[in-house]
Amino acid sequence: MVPQKRKLIIFLCSDNSKAKISVMELCRRMGFIPVDMGLLSSSLEIENLPLYLFPSWRVPVLGTLALFIFFYLYNFIQDILQPYVTAGKNFFYKMPIETVNVTLPSVALVLLSLVYLPGLCAAFLQLWLGTKYKRFPDWLDQWLTMRKQLGLCSFLCSVLHAIYSLCLPMRKSARYELLNLAFKQVNDGVEISWDDEKVWRMELYLSVGIMALGLLSLLAITSLPSVANTVNWREFSFVQSTLGYCALAMATIHTLLFGWNRAFIPAQYRFFLPPTFLLVLILPFLVLLGRLALLVPCVAQRLRQIRRGWEKSHHIRFTLLQDGSQNSLENVSHV
Amino acid sequence: MVPQKRKLIIFLCSDNSKAKISVMELCRRMGFIPVDMGLLSSSLEIENLPLYLFPSWRVPVLGTLALFIFFYLYNFIQDILQPYVTAGKNFFYKMPIETVNVTLPSVALVLLSLVYLPGLCAAFLQLWLGTKYKRFPDWLDQWLTMRKQLGLCSFLCSVLHAIYSLCLPMRKSARYELLNLAFKQVNDGVEISWDDEKVWRMELYLSVGIMALGLLSLLAITSLPSVANTVNWREFSFVQSTLGYCALAMATIHTLLFGWNRAFIPAQYRFFLPPTFLLVLILPFLVLLGRLALLVPCVAQRLRQIRRGWEKSHHIRFTLLQDGSQNSLENVSHV
Amino acid sequence: MVPQKRKLIIFLCSDNSKAKISVMELCRRMGFIPVDMGLLSSSLEIENLPLYLFPSWRVPVLGTLALFIFFYLYNFIQDILQPYVTAGKNFFYKMPIETVNVTLPSVALVLLSLVYLPGLCAAFLQLWLGTKYKRFPDWLDQWLTMRKQLGLCSFLCSVLHAIYSLCLPMRKSARYELLNLAFKQVNDGVEISWDDEKVWRMELYLSVGIMALGLLSLLAITSLPSVANTVNWREFSFVQSTLGYCALAMATIHTLLFGWNRAFIPAQYRFFLPPTFLLVLILPFLVLLGRLALLVPCVAQRLRQIRRGWEKSHHIRFTLLQDGSQNSLENVSHV
Repeated sequence: MVPQKRKLIIFLCSDNSKAKISVMELCRRMGFIPVDMGLLSSSLEIENLPLYLFPSWRVPVLGTLALFIFFYLYNFIQDILQPYVTAGKNFFYKMPIETVNVTLPSVALVLLSLVYLPGLCAAFLQLWLGTKYKRFPDWLDQWLTMRKQLGLCSFLCSVLHAIYSLCLPMRKSARYELLNLAFKQVNDGVEISWDDEKVWRMELYLSVGIMALGLLSLLAITSLPSVANTVNWREFSFVQSTLGYCALAMATIHTLLFGWNRAFIPAQYRFFLPPTFLLVLILPFLVLLGRLALLVPCVAQRLRQIRRGWEKSHHIRFTLLQDGSQNSLENVSHV
Repeated sequence: MVPQKRKLIIFLCSDNSKAKISVMELCRRMGFIPVDMGLLSSSLEIENLPLYLFPSWRVPVLGTLALFIFFYLYNFIQDILQPYVTAGKNFFYKMPIETVNVTLPSVALVLLSLVYLPGLCAAFLQLWLGTKYKRFPDWLDQWLTMRKQLGLCSFLCSVLHAIYSLCLPMRKSARYELLNLAFKQVNDGVEISWDDEKVWRMELYLSVGIMALGLLSLLAITSLPSVANTVNWREFSFVQSTLGYCALAMATIHTLLFGWNRAFIPAQYRFFLPPTFLLVLILPFLVLLGRLALLVPCVAQRLRQIRRGWEKSHHIRFTLLQDGSQNSLENVSHV
Repeated sequence: MVPQKRKLIIFLCSDNSKAKISVMELCRRMGFIPVDMGLLSSSLEIENLPLYLFPSWRVPVLGTLALFIFFYLYNFIQDILQPYVTAGKNFFYKMPIETVNVTLPSVALVLLSLVYLPGLCAAFLQLWLGTKYKRFPDWLDQWLTMRKQLGLCSFLCSVLHAIYSLCLPMRKSARYELLNLAFKQVNDGVEISWDDEKVWRMELYLSVGIMALGLLSLLAITSLPSVANTVNWREFSFVQSTLGYCALAMATIHTLLFGWNRAFIPAQYRFFLPPTFLLVLILPFLVLLGRLALLVPCVAQRLRQIRRGWEKSHHIRFTLLQDGSQNSLENVSHV
């Protein structure tokens, strides 16, 4: 009754390529993802699969690492190297915590938008082709199966970001800065002025961040196997799609509030590079705009028609109708 | 061997009301909760149930939202509106974090006592009726099935309260307050006096709060389906009942330590309204007193007799004995 | 295909001791752990097992409590009693939070090394005996089955330690100390000097601690029954052994960075007792050194030979080969 939530992957190898193609077609119709593993000589590799190490996690984890290294180096250049080179300021002590803490949310937000991007691609592809009976290209198919892992990597980064942020006021460096600020204030003889704008920005920004983290935790709990088995299809789709988009929107607002007006201050463009949060916001904005575009009534209606079986070219395909519909529906049901 | 931990709900509809009543009776004897859905014409609705969105969560989530809105408005009036109206002080910046952070623990504590109230009601009802073979009224039956959801909502609020509290020292406003206090202290030329009472209150209050959160986490982990399946009946009941009451007692002490002597300071009764923590403490106190009353030896013994099948009216009912006993035992086993 | 991840325990009792011994031998060959429960008269006890309260958790929880009480008293004597007795300083307010927060990580680290010690013992025993077909002594067998519970107790202590640490800057006492430091600094008329060493130590120490906590969380999630069922044998062993040793190494470095050079300062040896972190580091150092010893090529190769069935005494045992190999392999596969 409840449709399967994840598609099984079937590995095939054969020396007879015709037979293989027809078996692959059969697999596809049954709702599995066939993966061509070449000639029969590679069957040993398939049999060794139980000994593989998290095959479905490899690409998401490597992607997370690559994003982390990229953003870490970017932040290192902007926040530590630039002040050192231009003004001789030694901020290298920021490397273990502050730079990591600016890098983690960037990685988390980019990964979260990568969770929702393939669903959008699939929807736009269906709209463009005008049918749901064409198979998605392989990269899209594999990307769609990776969404859970990408989402959990994003959640891990968010949680670490929260813990790092909470550690900030504990550090000796934060203490020294506060004490020296107090000292300066007394020496100048004026009370520090209560900057209402900064106060509000910080309160809103923390508050939205906590809410985004709360929503992401709900998503993560729902993806635990034992919990996922107890919810029905509509509930799963509500949590992963509706709540997920809410979390993405919250995280985007969190980043916008963090950025505030700094995108318009030339001093923030150190070494002529834009500040990190500007780079990070590109993908989530694309995803949120794409999602809004799909909510426009005429587009939404056409997509609903296509998913119910309507086709631009009006060919009626009897055999494929049953199997194919389930297949593609599932691929995009998280949009 | 191990009794079921949650009762299944059976939805029935029929045009023949006699048949329906006897089937409902049968369901009840088998340990299920029959729910009368009316005439056969509503059968479509039952068939659509798999498409429903978290039906068992609707009441708990709406209740949580209602409590949140009530306490938020109450705190808003007391902490922000009152100083603004009477003294012209602008504390509106407290809205996104501080007011939410005072509201969340109130909601969490009320919800947690609502988890244990129905079990107490059931026990007192059994004591009053002198039998366990009378069915509980419908509202109590449904409330008893909602305890897990109420508990998880309470846990969510507690965790959010912990995160919000940990964020407090990070805020710009906390920084400004600290700096201005340092400035004032220097200008006055006296070191701030170490208030031993305040220090102890804060240390105890944080410490008890963390312990309450730790116990609630254990409860939440045990309610994960895969974990719940691996514990036996006595273990489940120990965690959910004994540890649960410990968590409730800890949370109550946490609130009492937070309140300290403020209930006796007239200035705390702004707009003649009692401070929030006084309102919040009513229900947990009732529940804890009720639980203590059940521990009084003569009461505890009578309850034990009743649950073993003893009846005030000494009628022996052969057929109901087997089924009914399981049925009611389960309802109150979390007391 | 995937070997079982935990060995089942079989309770036996019989008045015929010969029959019992042969059944026990049979159980052992089938990969179970037979436990002799004495004469037939104790069969009632076995039947009551479902009513037992977390039998597999009893020793780990009691061990955790014992360690906690020991380290708490040790820290109490060093940090609170000693200053009170020798200098009359009143630090009793540190009891609910600071002393607990120094005790928790000690307990966590000792428990974590107790998780990996039995696997090492088993490996060295196999190397010494030169075979894997001798049964481990009972205490080792039972210790090996307790590793999951010990690990989860260690994780609980680590998480509580993290929450306690994050609460530190929220306390009134931390506020008073900071304000008085600011006051002193102004009165002395000199800015506090930025101590680069202290800053770096704190940043590194926090950073490594967060990473250790992150790794432990992954271990804890993987030990949830529903998650453990979805990973294959190599994945389970990778997470529990490789990542687990990484977490142990991280936690050891975290403790070393916390200790820094304090082991060489005589003032830290209050009442002639070594500081806590020195005591705590003994076990993890032993475990890490033992693990390194097993990585030495010639030792590693001999162990691999033994686990493949090679024996020092060159007796070929046909019947035991199949059953026994699985049995012992499993015991030490987490090393």
